Amino acid sequence: MYAALEDERPSLFEEKRWLGKMIGWSLKHEDLRTNGLRFVDVFPALTTTAMLMEHLEEYFGPLTSLPGPLHWALNLTSKAGRPGSAALAGLVRYGMKKLGEQFIIGEDLGRAVRNLNRVRREGCAFSVDILGEAVLSETEAERYGALYSDLVEALQRAQREWPPLGSGGDGNGLDWGHQPRYSVSIKPTSLYSQARPQNFDGSVDAMLARVRGISEKVMAGGGALCIDMESYQYKNMSLELFKRLRSEFPANPHLSVAMQSYLRDTDRDLVDLLDWSESRGLPVAIRLVKGAYWDYEILRTRQNGWEIPVYSGKAETDAAFERHARLILEHHGNAYLACGSHNIRSIAAVMETARDLAVPDDRCEFQVLYGMAEPVRRLLTRVTGRVRLYCPYGKIIPGMAYLVRRLLENTANQSFLRLMFAEKTDILGLLKDPVQTAEEEAKGDAPRPEAFSFSNEPMADFARSEERDSFREALASVRQELGKPCPLFINGLDRVTDDVVPSLNPADPTEVVAFASQAGRTEMDEAIVAAQTAFERWRDTPPAERAGYLKRAAGWMRGRSYRLAAWQVLEIGKQWDQASADVAEAIDFLEYYAAEMVRLGGLHPLPSVPGELNQSLYEPRGVAAVVAPWNFPLAITTGMVSAAVVTGNCVVYKPSPLTPVIGHQLVEAFRAAGLPPGVFNFVPGRTEVIAEHLINNPLVTTIAFTGSTQVGLKIIENAALLREGQWTVKRVICEMGGKNAIIIDEDADLDEAVPGVLISAFGFQGQKCSSCSRVIVLEGIYENFLNRLVEAARSLPVGPAYDPAFVMGPVCDGQAKVRISRYIDLAAEEGTILYSGETPPGGNYVPITIVGDIRPEHRIAREEIFGPVLAIMRVKTFDEALEWANGTRFALTGGVFSRNPRSLDAARKRFQVGNLYLNRHITGARVGRQPFGGFKMSGLGTKAGGAEYLLHFMDQRVVTENTARHGFSPDIR
Amino acid sequence: MYAALEDERPSLFEEKRWLGKMIGWSLKHEDLRTNGLRFVDVFPALTTTAMLMEHLEEYFGPLTSLPGPLHWALNLTSKAGRPGSAALAGLVRYGMKKLGEQFIIGEDLGRAVRNLNRVRREGCAFSVDILGEAVLSETEAERYGALYSDLVEALQRAQREWPPLGSGGDGNGLDWGHQPRYSVSIKPTSLYSQARPQNFDGSVDAMLARVRGISEKVMAGGGALCIDMESYQYKNMSLELFKRLRSEFPANPHLSVAMQSYLRDTDRDLVDLLDWSESRGLPVAIRLVKGAYWDYEILRTRQNGWEIPVYSGKAETDAAFERHARLILEHHGNAYLACGSHNIRSIAAVMETARDLAVPDDRCEFQVLYGMAEPVRRLLTRVTGRVRLYCPYGKIIPGMAYLVRRLLENTANQSFLRLMFAEKTDILGLLKDPVQTAEEEAKGDAPRPEAFSFSNEPMADFARSEERDSFREALASVRQELGKPCPLFINGLDRVTDDVVPSLNPADPTEVVAFASQAGRTEMDEAIVAAQTAFERWRDTPPAERAGYLKRAAGWMRGRSYRLAAWQVLEIGKQWDQASADVAEAIDFLEYYAAEMVRLGGLHPLPSVPGELNQSLYEPRGVAAVVAPWNFPLAITTGMVSAAVVTGNCVVYKPSPLTPVIGHQLVEAFRAAGLPPGVFNFVPGRTEVIAEHLINNPLVTTIAFTGSTQVGLKIIENAALLREGQWTVKRVICEMGGKNAIIIDEDADLDEAVPGVLISAFGFQGQKCSSCSRVIVLEGIYENFLNRLVEAARSLPVGPAYDPAFVMGPVCDGQAKVRISRYIDLAAEEGTILYSGETPPGGNYVPITIVGDIRPEHRIAREEIFGPVLAIMRVKTFDEALEWANGTRFALTGGVFSRNPRSLDAARKRFQVGNLYLNRHITGARVGRQPFGGFKMSGLGTKAGGAEYLLHFMDQRVVTENTARHGFSPDIR
Repeated sequence: MYAALEDERPSLFEEKRWLGKMIGWSLKHEDLRTNGLRFVDVFPALTTTAMLMEHLEEYFGPLTSLPGPLHWALNLTSKAGRPGSAALAGLVRYGMKKLGEQFIIGEDLGRAVRNLNRVRREGCAFSVDILGEAVLSETEAERYGALYSDLVEALQRAQREWPPLGSGGDGNGLDWGHQPRYSVSIKPTSLYSQARPQNFDGSVDAMLARVRGISEKVMAGGGALCIDMESYQYKNMSLELFKRLRSEFPANPHLSVAMQSYLRDTDRDLVDLLDWSESRGLPVAIRLVKGAYWDYEILRTRQNGWEIPVYSGKAETDAAFERHARLILEHHGNAYLACGSHNIRSIAAVMETARDLAVPDDRCEFQVLYGMAEPVRRLLTRVTGRVRLYCPYGKIIPGMAYLVRRLLENTANQSFLRLMFAEKTDILGLLKDPVQTAEEEAKGDAPRPEAFSFSNEPMADFARSEERDSFREALASVRQELGKPCPLFINGLDRVTDDVVPSLNPADPTEVVAFASQAGRTEMDEAIVAAQTAFERWRDTPPAERAGYLKRAAGWMRGRSYRLAAWQVLEIGKQWDQASADVAEAIDFLEYYAAEMVRLGGLHPLPSVPGELNQSLYEPRGVAAVVAPWNFPLAITTGMVSAAVVTGNCVVYKPSPLTPVIGHQLVEAFRAAGLPPGVFNFVPGRTEVIAEHLINNPLVTTIAFTGSTQVGLKIIENAALLREGQWTVKRVICEMGGKNAIIIDEDADLDEAVPGVLISAFGFQGQKCSSCSRVIVLEGIYENFLNRLVEAARSLPVGPAYDPAFVMGPVCDGQAKVRISRYIDLAAEEGTILYSGETPPGGNYVPITIVGDIRPEHRIAREEIFGPVLAIMRVKTFDEALEWANGTRFALTGGVFSRNPRSLDAARKRFQVGNLYLNRHITGARVGRQPFGGFKMSGLGTKAGGAEYLLHFMDQRVVTENTARHGFSPDIR
Repeated sequence: MYAALEDERPSLFEEKRWLGKMIGWSLKHEDLRTNGLRFVDVFPALTTTAMLMEHLEEYFGPLTSLPGPLHWALNLTSKAGRPGSAALAGLVRYGMKKLGEQFIIGEDLGRAVRNLNRVRREGCAFSVDILGEAVLSETEAERYGALYSDLVEALQRAQREWPPLGSGGDGNGLDWGHQPRYSVSIKPTSLYSQARPQNFDGSVDAMLARVRGISEKVMAGGGALCIDMESYQYKNMSLELFKRLRSEFPANPHLSVAMQSYLRDTDRDLVDLLDWSESRGLPVAIRLVKGAYWDYEILRTRQNGWEIPVYSGKAETDAAFERHARLILEHHGNAYLACGSHNIRSIAAVMETARDLAVPDDRCEFQVLYGMAEPVRRLLTRVTGRVRLYCPYGKIIPGMAYLVRRLLENTANQSFLRLMFAEKTDILGLLKDPVQTAEEEAKGDAPRPEAFSFSNEPMADFARSEERDSFREALASVRQELGKPCPLFINGLDRVTDDVVPSLNPADPTEVVAFASQAGRTEMDEAIVAAQTAFERWRDTPPAERAGYLKRAAGWMRGRSYRLAAWQVLEIGKQWDQASADVAEAIDFLEYYAAEMVRLGGLHPLPSVPGELNQSLYEPRGVAAVVAPWNFPLAITTGMVSAAVVTGNCVVYKPSPLTPVIGHQLVEAFRAAGLPPGVFNFVPGRTEVIAEHLINNPLVTTIAFTGSTQVGLKIIENAALLREGQWTVKRVICEMGGKNAIIIDEDADLDEAVPGVLISAFGFQGQKCSSCSRVIVLEGIYENFLNRLVEAARSLPVGPAYDPAFVMGPVCDGQAKVRISRYIDLAAEEGTILYSGETPPGGNYVPITIVGDIRPEHRIAREEIFGPVLAIMRVKTFDEALEWANGTRFALTGGVFSRNPRSLDAARKRFQVGNLYLNRHITGARVGRQPFGGFKMSGLGTKAGGAEYLLHFMDQRVVTENTARHGFSPDIR
């Protein structure tokens, strides 16, 4: 095979053609490849010539690696003014269209059918898949379903003209005598917008309902249907969906499912599926591919700290592919193999294995992608006669994501196609047994040094059934414990008081979660004295030892993370994933501050001259008061408390009255860690007691507060007043409110921007200080963005957080419900309600609200609402957007969706917020990676989870030693 | 010579003797040598067995290199309890005595004379020098003078018994026929305690007055006198002193002066002296030595950033010695050479040169140190017959400093004695021409990389006459400019107002330094608006460009540092050195913050995972108000203003009403640097205006204040109150008062502790926030310390700062004088006045006051006085000392004089002050090396001149970019 292909080149690498030339250049220069791929990505959004020209300039202007002719073209047109631009823009558009046509079978049904006619004339079968944007709403999902319907009808009409392929047919009208003449591939998530791993069963049900209709239609016309495989998080859903679908149509063997050899799970999944098939007597067809989301899987799992589901080496995947193919071929009685690869070593291995196992021709076919590796396709057609092209169909513009994946596949360093056709790598390496290569590579793998010792705690990965089960069990267990008393904890002892406040389930405020004891003046004073007393020894406890307590507390939390999260679901209405993230963040704070304290402990060298030794050290300040909010009831609490404790201060901690039980979890964690009595004291209390007897106490040196700006400012004022007997100017570490904006630039990727805004604005009901409450949209993209946003919002299911089917739940309490409802009334007065959702009965629910026509002077644009109310503001320019974004008293988080480097750069420089997020949601800062906190009226500039945070809880001392004695100093000899 | 000596060993290296063994061990282990030398240094202070044992344990216990027998002895005695301790202590004391006797001719006159008899019997002449502690007061100087008197009388009596040495005598009773039979060496600073480089003429006059009397006495008895050379700062004084003395006794050729070949100056000095001698017809005798203060000179000059006066390589010094000796020998008609070296190459060179030049024997002699290099001495005596031993005389205990110098000399890596006798280095290298060695070494010298790019601005080195002259001229010039108006500076323009306040010379309050315009509400508002307006562009000016303005301002200051300092002498009464230090510190702040801003500017990487790029950046806050004190009128002002400006804020600066002219220097510096209008505004003003219209202005985001705790707390309170229209929580950067203590441990080196306390307590009249106002003394050393302290204080001359004769001057103004005087009255009530000095007439003078019997509860021990009033507190233990030291509301600076590692360690851990100094004065923190600032009521923990200072003027922003586009991220390929 190699010999037959050696002198051929697929069209993509054909240097004589301009596309081949471009690809060739990009293979030589990494930055050109990166920016080229990014340009392809943004191209669909460049609706005007001006935008196109600006992006060309921004993407390619600064590149020194830009090939001469392109550089020349860019320069020339910028000099030639508008006519030049128009000419270049025309050329670029033409080129992109040609690029699209390389991979896409057609933009409309007419052209698609014409091209399919040609494909069949060339002797190949096909399967058509519909390209498109991400499906973000049920409206979009329905539109997608309709497109499939039209496609199937068109194929049914067209097939009448198609003689079956292959000579082996027995006049049954089937290709090669055994396969339908048309085939459709489908991605389940394109038919249902709300599939989520934590809602596994609900998602599968909903997807099945949609797929079923199309299946019926396909089969009615005698066609074949393949369930495509997407990213790992949907893999199990897709397999389950396939099984249920297959069971519903027992007589139809032309239902197939794709499986990805790069997944470590696939060995097991394949055995499962073959077992299932045999036990049910339902033959299956499997499209075996290597997998096209490798980069994405790496990113997603590395970002979440999850186990990486894909093989890290290319050779491992190649070896798995051969292994999987063999397994399927071994079961050829029940299983039909569609071998999807362009790698001639893989293909040859399948052919040889099939021959060895005497697999009949009608149990196996070969698939390649339309527009790629044509020499391979031609060879396969010649040799096997059974080749199917995977043919994407749809508008080229929204199909760019597919294009990027294909270009990536062709140009990746390890790409077989690149190596075979563009780089002409040595044949032995290319055709070598991948098992051997993988083994050799494994030997060379030295453990890579960690960039920094701390790593984030992984959140629960609800794509894994065991994690869903654990969470469900924890919820059930916690439910058994509701309604108990929640005591104070002072000087190492529990303390129950007569004054008790109930904590309620926001989804059902008649349900009491616990009865929380309240500290009075006496208890508060006792706690402060206990802390002050414990301070003497605690301050002298070595930093590493203090860090040890935090690490033990982290271990305790890690051991019962589901339980801890389950309490959050019930006490404050966090969704599963939100609650799980909160617990993971609490663990992060413990581990991170422990590591930081070890780093900061001891003596640090300062610049010195001979005879002089300068060193600095940090020491604690004394009693610290921690006043925490309910919205990150464990994470923020743990952050503030652990920072104070590990730095050597002793803490008097007051949780929110809404979350005493979650606050009390820290008591348990530190008790389990063996923290000495008095170092940490837990004192829920009423506002007057906290203000008068905690904040104002002269023994309190440091106050850590996270909460509303109003309360924060009051604390700052009070802390600044000197009290009788006070020896230290109080320091306030303070995180307050936000009025956070996301800017949608004209070239934003709405597939990312719409879900990014949704999660930022409505995640945990918009009750995060980081939540998005303003979206500032450039007018060129306004309509398009808003339509998709409203439809996507409309698709969000609302209900109690303990049911993972719901994306949004109740707000924290009745007062909040009233307050937010008033803001919704105000929104209607100041602007135009674009969407107001339904709310379920009972519970503190408020409707998801999107309000348009909001301007900077409106209260809705200025005041923090802390609920699911989103203001939409329309601007003419990016500069105006920045100005509006900065035009509030707050400066906490902000976001920009843009693919224009100039806009991103402007935001980097001038978007005045503590945490700015580019092209992603604006909530969910991770400890260590995104030190969190704002300025202006949002906070005092401290950055929780950052390298400077612990410094606020300590004072720095400098020690200067004269090391010379009578002119003798050891450091100058 | 080498052959004759090859098999000999001086007694110090004699391995058969215990001392030789010890030296041998210490040569092998650097830490043993260091701690051994340090133990010798502290030994005199170990007055009890317990102290001795503790120090042995502390110094030698932790050393792994401790030789077996010593380790064993240490262990054994610690197990054997008190009798064991007593035994070991006895041994150690005996050993130290023996060590002392090795180098010291005698502890009393009787023994000294007996040993001198022996020396002469062995054929050597001698010169006796009296050892002793540092001379810190005139009382001590007088005592020293008396000792010399007694010595001379004893020698005169003794010489009657001594036949002259040498056979060449003609019966004139002279040794070798030309030298008196006794010789005395003298260090001029031992006879006058107040010699200071800036007061050159006054110091020489005073020293001459004391030396003259002894000279007369020595000559009357027919003896010789040598003026010894000490450290470089006194070198020119000693030469001047010698010339004047020599002129006063033209007939006496037996007055000699020592010169040090390791000084780069000596080539020139020698030519000068020989010229002088010839032109005056006054023959001179020169003791040529290499120099014994090499380490000290390196330390002193490196610490002050001065040019290093000594050769850095040993070979260069050796070469210089041969060159200098040749020059003297060439002038043998006028000059007599005493060749002081143990290096046989040097000695041989001198002998050969003398022969070449046919120098008569009576124009040259050889000197070696008593107790060192005996084989060399014996050989020289045999060969030349003209050898003089330099014989220290005095108590062994206080002579330990001499001992340390000698041990250092014997054990230094490059020591000839060590190489020759202990290490038996190869002969060729040892005897090689040093010129050649020096040239070879120079070739190998690569420029060493700087550890950090910033380096401190050198202060004026008043040991150099050109710097004294420049200062004097600047003072005269500035005097011509008194009485002019001092305008405001707003938005780049000078502004004169009707409301004017005069600034007065504290040494003569009738003298008006300038008339300072005062800002009213209108001007203040204008300044704030100007700053706010300038902010828009300034914040976007690149950090490196902003840093450039600071560097230019620094250059401007550097170019007129004498003038800037001279204004301080007149406007606020700083002494020359204090004023010069203030200007150098101002330059340091400009350079340091410029370098820091370049470091902090731009984007900084944060930990990131694939597909995510996290970066942080800092940005300015807006309008900053700077309120500065008068006591470091340029340095602190420049520090706060330049930090605010370089970080991108715009500044409204209010100087102290006492120092408007010095404050205005910053206007001039920034004007010269071309700073854009509005970025820096200068608005002296009355308290009400500042409070109401600057601090409380809602546009002010940041307030930098240095001054009293009372005012600081008021500012903190006011800044915390939210004002209408305020968008940012104000941040206060605040340095306030201190009540700083120095602890004198039982084993303190009083030679260091007494002057350290003096300069800390009375430097600039105690008007520094870092000044020492409490000394806490362990009772074991109390009497001794106090006697020396009071006498030393009594010796301090008080008068106007423009006359460099005075160490202390007037306090800042009349109000301060009244306030401090009230505290002195209170001191008399609460404690016992131990010393109260005289004050000159006129000017705001208050007496230097030392008050004893002060306890922690006294107001004198608790309140900041800010004047030359020092409280003495007596404690039983070091723990108690720490407790008392920490027992105030302040935590700014503190100091410990101790040679006990355990005490130093306890202080390091538990002495709660922002800046702790061990074994040195507690004022004079240097930018970059000693970041300065305190906590508790002394400040908010900010550290001026430290790596974290600029952060307070900025807010940190974190930018998180999702770098993945449709699963493609450049960072994971």
